[in-house]
Amino acid sequence: QIVQALIEKQPKTPQTWQGKTFVITAGPTREAIDPVRYISNHSSGKMGYALAEAAAHAGANVILVSGPTQLATPAGVQRIDVETAEQMLNAVQQQLQQCDVFIGCAAVSDYRIAEIASQKIKKEQNDEPPQLKLVQNPDILQQVASSEKPPFTVGFAAETENLKANALRKLERKQLKMIVANDVSQTGLGFNSDSNNAIIFSQDSEQSLPTMSKHDMAVAIIDAIAKRYFDNTTPEIRAN
Amino acid sequence: QIVQALIEKQPKTPQTWQGKTFVITAGPTREAIDPVRYISNHSSGKMGYALAEAAAHAGANVILVSGPTQLATPAGVQRIDVETAEQMLNAVQQQLQQCDVFIGCAAVSDYRIAEIASQKIKKEQNDEPPQLKLVQNPDILQQVASSEKPPFTVGFAAETENLKANALRKLERKQLKMIVANDVSQTGLGFNSDSNNAIIFSQDSEQSLPTMSKHDMAVAIIDAIAKRYFDNTTPEIRAN
Repeated sequence: QIVQALIEKQPKTPQTWQGKTFVITAGPTREAIDPVRYISNHSSGKMGYALAEAAAHAGANVILVSGPTQLATPAGVQRIDVETAEQMLNAVQQQLQQCDVFIGCAAVSDYRIAEIASQKIKKEQNDEPPQLKLVQNPDILQQVASSEKPPFTVGFAAETENLKANALRKLERKQLKMIVANDVSQTGLGFNSDSNNAIIFSQDSEQSLPTMSKHDMAVAIIDAIAKRYFDNTTPEIRAN
Repeated sequence: QIVQALIEKQPKTPQTWQGKTFVITAGPTREAIDPVRYISNHSSGKMGYALAEAAAHAGANVILVSGPTQLATPAGVQRIDVETAEQMLNAVQQQLQQCDVFIGCAAVSDYRIAEIASQKIKKEQNDEPPQLKLVQNPDILQQVASSEKPPFTVGFAAETENLKANALRKLERKQLKMIVANDVSQTGLGFNSDSNNAIIFSQDSEQSLPTMSKHDMAVAIIDAIAKRYFDNTTPEIRAN
């Protein structure tokens, strides 16, 4: 039905994105507490990897900047492994020059530990449990979208409440072209799952994607980006 | 050399542990911060799974209580999946009645978050990064070793400094029969790695295990436990 229709609307030739470069972030980041402990989140990286695969299949040059995952690199994709949010930002910035479309799909830790302990924190040396002082991490999406010549920037919003309001606020605040929002409080969907549903928001549109595999969703998202991207660029660039 | 000698000393028949039950914990635990974030550590679970496999191969009935890992359950092993330290303790306690040997190989979080947020913590709603207040988790090893009829209890010590002193202190304080200590500050060994080296301490002995695969190390550890266990039990029990 709708899923099938979305997929069939894809151009027959997979070369839509020939000559264009995608930079896609995926997976969680890890922020060290000490040499053995860290803060992280429930991202498996599956959605970001599926997007990288779909973009590569559609002809794009794809650079995947990935936090720690258990996934194999999709065929034809260049992968850069990172651990922390700061490492991810650095890797992304080094690729920005050549980047036409940026998709921030990684679940970047909003916070890191203010001071990482150089040795393992031993509980018997502490009468009281330690307090973890956090500091805010750089906002990779926002920095990319507000860079001098920003690529077409797409964000993700994993929300547990007020899906639409939170997603639209994020779109606006970070000056994104598009945001893919999904409700991670639904069991069996989203994080670590193989399927997902979502709503794609742009400034003036809203497109619901019903529950489907992350592979199918990735194809639908890359297609939605193509519609916007090639509408917003000049015919000359489109002819590339 | 030494590795080979250790392995060859293994009884020819794999039925050393016939009729005995091992409870083995493995992997990290995860302590939720909010629905998407958590605290964890760098344990892959490989050592605990290797121990479960080696004990089952030596004829034991093996119950593996496992935190989140990417590993397949070894043949013949009964696996119980848990996420947090408290869930791991509960699962272990339910198996204690029938447990002859307990090996605490999991990297249990010493701390958990005092109050888990029921919704995702949004950074734009906080001027200041939140402080994470921690509380101490139950000590599973200590509770097992100090239970009314304690099994033969074996602990692990992953240390980044003062290996021997920290391991012996842990052996004493928790009243363990045996502790396997390794230095996790050595790159390429221990956490997430396929090989390891270690020192096995008991009250009156010290046995160095050189760098070897986790599989070989598991066989050597199960063998070291057998030597102690069957020396310390009465001939009647031994005849079982």
